[in-house]
Amino acid sequence: MNGLRLIPLGGMGHVTQNMYLYEYEDEILIVDCGIGFPDMYMPGVDILIPDTAYLMKQLEEGFHIAGMLLTHGHDDHIAATPYILPELPDFPMYGSPLTAGFAENRMQDMEKPRKVNVLQDKKWCKIGKYFEVMPLAMTHSVPDTKHYIIKTPEGIVYHGTDFKLDQKPIDGVLPDYDSIEELGKAGVDLMLMDCLRVEKKGWVKSESTCGPAIEEAMMNIKGKALVTLMSSHIHRIQQTINAAAKCGRKVAFVGRSVEQNVEVALSLKKLNVPMGMIIDKHDITNTADSELCVIIAGSQGQEGSSLIRAIYGEHPILRINSQDKVIFSADAIPGNDVPYYAAIDELFRNGVEVVYPSLSPDIHQSGHAGAEEQRTLLSMVMPRYVMPIGGADRHRVLFKTMVAGQVGIEEKRVLVPGDGDIIMLKDGQISYPEQITIRGRAVDGLGIGDVGPRVISDRLALGNAGMIVIVLPRDRKNGQFHLDQMQVVSRGFVYMQDAEEVVKFIKDQTANFISQEKKKKTDTSLRIRLEKMIARKLFSIIRREPMIVVSFIDV
Amino acid sequence: MNGLRLIPLGGMGHVTQNMYLYEYEDEILIVDCGIGFPDMYMPGVDILIPDTAYLMKQLEEGFHIAGMLLTHGHDDHIAATPYILPELPDFPMYGSPLTAGFAENRMQDMEKPRKVNVLQDKKWCKIGKYFEVMPLAMTHSVPDTKHYIIKTPEGIVYHGTDFKLDQKPIDGVLPDYDSIEELGKAGVDLMLMDCLRVEKKGWVKSESTCGPAIEEAMMNIKGKALVTLMSSHIHRIQQTINAAAKCGRKVAFVGRSVEQNVEVALSLKKLNVPMGMIIDKHDITNTADSELCVIIAGSQGQEGSSLIRAIYGEHPILRINSQDKVIFSADAIPGNDVPYYAAIDELFRNGVEVVYPSLSPDIHQSGHAGAEEQRTLLSMVMPRYVMPIGGADRHRVLFKTMVAGQVGIEEKRVLVPGDGDIIMLKDGQISYPEQITIRGRAVDGLGIGDVGPRVISDRLALGNAGMIVIVLPRDRKNGQFHLDQMQVVSRGFVYMQDAEEVVKFIKDQTANFISQEKKKKTDTSLRIRLEKMIARKLFSIIRREPMIVVSFIDV
Repeated sequence: MNGLRLIPLGGMGHVTQNMYLYEYEDEILIVDCGIGFPDMYMPGVDILIPDTAYLMKQLEEGFHIAGMLLTHGHDDHIAATPYILPELPDFPMYGSPLTAGFAENRMQDMEKPRKVNVLQDKKWCKIGKYFEVMPLAMTHSVPDTKHYIIKTPEGIVYHGTDFKLDQKPIDGVLPDYDSIEELGKAGVDLMLMDCLRVEKKGWVKSESTCGPAIEEAMMNIKGKALVTLMSSHIHRIQQTINAAAKCGRKVAFVGRSVEQNVEVALSLKKLNVPMGMIIDKHDITNTADSELCVIIAGSQGQEGSSLIRAIYGEHPILRINSQDKVIFSADAIPGNDVPYYAAIDELFRNGVEVVYPSLSPDIHQSGHAGAEEQRTLLSMVMPRYVMPIGGADRHRVLFKTMVAGQVGIEEKRVLVPGDGDIIMLKDGQISYPEQITIRGRAVDGLGIGDVGPRVISDRLALGNAGMIVIVLPRDRKNGQFHLDQMQVVSRGFVYMQDAEEVVKFIKDQTANFISQEKKKKTDTSLRIRLEKMIARKLFSIIRREPMIVVSFIDV
Repeated sequence: MNGLRLIPLGGMGHVTQNMYLYEYEDEILIVDCGIGFPDMYMPGVDILIPDTAYLMKQLEEGFHIAGMLLTHGHDDHIAATPYILPELPDFPMYGSPLTAGFAENRMQDMEKPRKVNVLQDKKWCKIGKYFEVMPLAMTHSVPDTKHYIIKTPEGIVYHGTDFKLDQKPIDGVLPDYDSIEELGKAGVDLMLMDCLRVEKKGWVKSESTCGPAIEEAMMNIKGKALVTLMSSHIHRIQQTINAAAKCGRKVAFVGRSVEQNVEVALSLKKLNVPMGMIIDKHDITNTADSELCVIIAGSQGQEGSSLIRAIYGEHPILRINSQDKVIFSADAIPGNDVPYYAAIDELFRNGVEVVYPSLSPDIHQSGHAGAEEQRTLLSMVMPRYVMPIGGADRHRVLFKTMVAGQVGIEEKRVLVPGDGDIIMLKDGQISYPEQITIRGRAVDGLGIGDVGPRVISDRLALGNAGMIVIVLPRDRKNGQFHLDQMQVVSRGFVYMQDAEEVVKFIKDQTANFISQEKKKKTDTSLRIRLEKMIARKLFSIIRREPMIVVSFIDV
């Protein structure tokens, strides 16, 4: 029949918005359901979520969802669930204990919160009629990350999501090399594999190297030690707690995401905290600064985060003073260095000592495998086909030569499909039978998907040069314009003191245009020509392109 | 009297917009006149220029400008001249040969273009009544960079602009260590010094290490070699030409900034090109791809640059195909990684090979000294006071401990003034007698300074959530609103298909508000309250904050 069809709904060449469909006959297995982060070309947008149009179409045509696997607890793999699940029918969900905990947390505000079933490592679990899956232990920047082996009627797929090969993981749980090698010997037909850090030639350092760096940074602080990090990074939090214990400091957690994730991790015993070491954040002010370590959300300098509010004196319970030290145990996410360094600069301006990766490189380590680690994992599995995922297009292309080529996998066995390509595995062969359109859906406030390309391009234009609205009253009886009652409203275009002159210019030009206009044009044609004329005149005078909107009002 | 007053018009803690005033009695010496680059919080703004309000005030009070020194040919030191000089009286300008050439180029479109006098290294030049200046050779990412020694009635100032200590500069012109040491022995009262790369612990590698990396990248290309770089980086261009010569390729220059800078450098013999090696860009299509090296502007992926137009097939004479290779001999400028990597990703998508610093680290080297280099220069001069410049606030603060402290200069002798602080040197003592307000002035299109904080905040709001204009006609005779003739115009808020519903909602709410309103309120009060009410309602429904503008129109 159709073979096994693999459909990446988050698109290819996007690092985030992870959501993969495995489709066989009328059955669909979903892997991950994550959000993406808008860049400077998507102003006002809060998050992006995968495009489920294809999935909805298949459901209408009688397909059903066998289940959803979650690979690990990062938001770009789980956090689209509250947006996407309400539009889908019920189906079982699966993940590791911590991933299940984080995902259930994300879904708690849904009308019908879902449960996530916990799968056991190295055990096959039947999902639907056609799929069997087995989780294998893997290391990454969140504990309990799994690589999934998916047995399908067309063969074995290795779903190798975000990973690094940490030789000294904090929880002692090494990647399951034995099972992976065994699997490789048995034969894997298709392997999907994280390629994000292919530009890094060797190995990424172990997470365990961060602990000593955090400890060193925490020595000899007169005031509070504040450590900011990714809130899901439980191992980093563990190491910070360990460092605080050595330095005789109690630990408080500040920031919704950190507090929630710590609560889940503690309840699952994924965090190991000496008795009495945690204090409630409301007791911060009752504790001596020198005996306090605050683990705080906002490591990207995000507006509204606890760290930023504390830095600018707007946090209800936390103040930062010049005896304190702030430790950024996180790099700036690509595209985000402006707010990240703005936070650091503000702290320096306030006389606060700051440690960040440029000054202490081991204070943060990436959770993604370098090229040599990718080769190591790939050479254990040696699949028939390999498809790099989780990277930008440059990473996917580089993977061909820098990873696959070097372990002896020929280029034609490395799959670099285009955005929207459906990948089919049938009788041991790969083909691309169909291309679908993938559009990231924007979530803005409470609206999902109502901010489309047109709204975005309008926002970009408005943000670049503002807007001018020309209101022209017209006599509804005789169709004559009342030019003397024309109104011009402008925002974001020029300094208000100069606006009067500009308004007069626009009014004169408009009046001139209208009075010279021959009758019998449609409103739309007249409006558009007037808008273009004003835009052209303004551009020639000042080389700016505000959005011009003409509105006729019949009175 | 007043002592020597130093006024940084570009502000402190800004890396760009360099412009310093040295003021003694009624005389002012200006050093540099550079632009700045707007970040994501200044949408639509093309460039920033220094705030000359203080200078204008002093001129009105009878001060005069003795002259302007230009330290080197980078735009953040020379390119504000065409905006700022027209508002100032005449005065002599000074610089090194290449700096003068670049600056005159920048000023060529001015109504009265200015000449820049060339100063000789190691020779004192009297400027005005009170100042004597001497240029010393220094190395940086543009040739002919100078550090200036400024003799004033209050002592010697070392103006140590952007530099690195290159041990193997391409033109063989080493930093003038002898003169610097001699000067240090004689005693320097105040030293200004580039601190930008203080986070880098050791030395920055020599520019000469880029040549072999470029050559290696240029080997074995079937098609064209395209090299993109900072257009003022004449030494990088020289090394690219040398590599092309070795690879048997002719060189063409594409992009206005590259072409102009190369022309100046050639005329000053700052570029050394074998006979017949340069071809006109219009001959690119007549030359075999395998014999061609194109040096092209656009290394930051700037919209509208030659490289970007070529990548997207919009360049009139240059096409890039999959046999070609593009070499990015430049890092992404901080804050600019999105367009930079977007260009690289697009090339990979098109099957074009790309080399960039993540893959070949030596293909670019910074022009700014690392901490160890900063210490080396500082320990030669050992001034009485040192003031880090050219860095963000974190760099200036780190300089205190990581540079000055380590060569034995106490913290109180390291000046880290706040934005707008005037620094005074009098009788060997430093004080901050006055603080002025410094505002970066925005250049947007042909407008200078008319895009102020209000326009910017409006643009950010418009860009984030769009705009809704409510036009309410009112009977000019009886003051009654014609609610049935109300018009609502919206852009950038919601998807057009949903707009009808939103428009109806807004009209209903507005009609309701107006009809319940008691009479006798001022227009302004009514308008503002209506705007706030609509904003609040929309936020509660959809959690967005479009700009709401109400306009009454009397008919």
